[in-house]
Amino acid sequence: MEKIETIGAMQQLARKWLLEGHTIAVVPTMGALHQGHLSLIDLARQHADKVVATIFVNPTQFGPNEDFDGYPRNSEADELQLQAHLTDALFMPTSKEMYPDGFETRVELTRLPLHLCGMRREGHFVGVTTVVLKLFNAVQPQLAVFGEKDYQQLMIVRKMVRDLNLPVEIIAGPTVRAEDGLAMSSRNRYLDIHERKAAISIYQALVRARQLVNSGTVDTIILRQAMTEIIEQAGANVDYVAVIHPESLEELNVVGAKAHAAIAAFVGRTRLIDNIRLKD
Amino acid sequence: MEKIETIGAMQQLARKWLLEGHTIAVVPTMGALHQGHLSLIDLARQHADKVVATIFVNPTQFGPNEDFDGYPRNSEADELQLQAHLTDALFMPTSKEMYPDGFETRVELTRLPLHLCGMRREGHFVGVTTVVLKLFNAVQPQLAVFGEKDYQQLMIVRKMVRDLNLPVEIIAGPTVRAEDGLAMSSRNRYLDIHERKAAISIYQALVRARQLVNSGTVDTIILRQAMTEIIEQAGANVDYVAVIHPESLEELNVVGAKAHAAIAAFVGRTRLIDNIRLKD
Repeated sequence: MEKIETIGAMQQLARKWLLEGHTIAVVPTMGALHQGHLSLIDLARQHADKVVATIFVNPTQFGPNEDFDGYPRNSEADELQLQAHLTDALFMPTSKEMYPDGFETRVELTRLPLHLCGMRREGHFVGVTTVVLKLFNAVQPQLAVFGEKDYQQLMIVRKMVRDLNLPVEIIAGPTVRAEDGLAMSSRNRYLDIHERKAAISIYQALVRARQLVNSGTVDTIILRQAMTEIIEQAGANVDYVAVIHPESLEELNVVGAKAHAAIAAFVGRTRLIDNIRLKD
Repeated sequence: MEKIETIGAMQQLARKWLLEGHTIAVVPTMGALHQGHLSLIDLARQHADKVVATIFVNPTQFGPNEDFDGYPRNSEADELQLQAHLTDALFMPTSKEMYPDGFETRVELTRLPLHLCGMRREGHFVGVTTVVLKLFNAVQPQLAVFGEKDYQQLMIVRKMVRDLNLPVEIIAGPTVRAEDGLAMSSRNRYLDIHERKAAISIYQALVRARQLVNSGTVDTIILRQAMTEIIEQAGANVDYVAVIHPESLEELNVVGAKAHAAIAAFVGRTRLIDNIRLKD
């Protein structure tokens, strides 16, 4: 596995690969890799003969009171896992390389971020879209793989790609879960043993919403109440529970032909998100 | 010359050329081509073996009270001129192709637009950077040529390219002038015979500022006064006269090691811009 730290070196390698006729897939990550990430690497491998993982804990997508400083970093373990999954290159630029003095460009969507996490984490998605575009321009992929766990991010990246005419296909990787249903997340490492138990309630709430929809409930007030109760009874705190249209991300009053449920909750001080398809 | 109207077809042609080892240069224009544009095509040809001109009158870079509807459009004459200068492809997408329903992505710089035209034309440079990035993603050039006449635009595009890690080199084409010094501009077509005479004052004012600097003037109040007088005596109206640092675009109180003069003026209802290097 090649380890690359500068944008110039990454672009040079990508250009060489492209001229040799290879297809490049990128899997952008913030490191602290888990089975969810590795499933995205494996999915990338199914679509491309060169797979690039990026590890960059992007400061601009963290709010001032969020966990940027404490975000788990474990690059040695990350590298071993990427090697085991036959990743061709690891691009891990420094902050200085990505945001040199005088950096002043932002890439912003005006509608999709006005929902869910976008309303709770100010500036988060401007940070995401800007860094993803920069990573794409560094890696020059034909394909990029993003996890469905971060559903709003997936939809926003897809929209940015379409709006900006990027010649990149976005592939969605299904959420990987622990046996008890908790969605894999680097932030699960923050949880103590009691919080780890309470965290299950997020997935349980989503499953309960799906059960209710399957048995005929269409009123989303009922669905949101049911989800909220399960989470609060477990001792976690709801940041939002939402029933949304899966493309516009707009909140639904009534479950129609397509619907998705999304939750953000604080378990202790750890904010976790998850989502599930209710209907499509 | 190939004529291409869809982003997909343009990307396909670019990909073919790139795999064949060609270098692509793009010259983005809004049509109504004149000698200035054609000099950019010729400059592009010196650096690349495939030259793509784009013609797109981009609605998002015009303000609500500006001349979008009246902007000169003359695609037959444009095509003949591009052919005569051996342009390989003309990319002329429709507005619908560039901005389909639901378009919501903006690319914005936070500092360089806070000067000169950026302060007078609200939203102009967001329109410019967004469309230029889209055109780059459609044409996939290694080089792009922009005219120095639109100096702030040139500097903003350069900055965007650097900030977003686009693998595109920006080449500046010198301003082409009529015999009397008036900078070539598609908007010169708006001028009647009296306005055409008054318009010369813009270049005369810039030359006067350079003369003053050459003979030792460093106080930019004096320079701005001298420029304003020349323009107003000709019967035109100053929108701004500025003495700026050529990289930060910040206004200078005193001419230092590097300085540039820039003017925007209304001649009748036509807004014209020009600039000149004072010192570097």
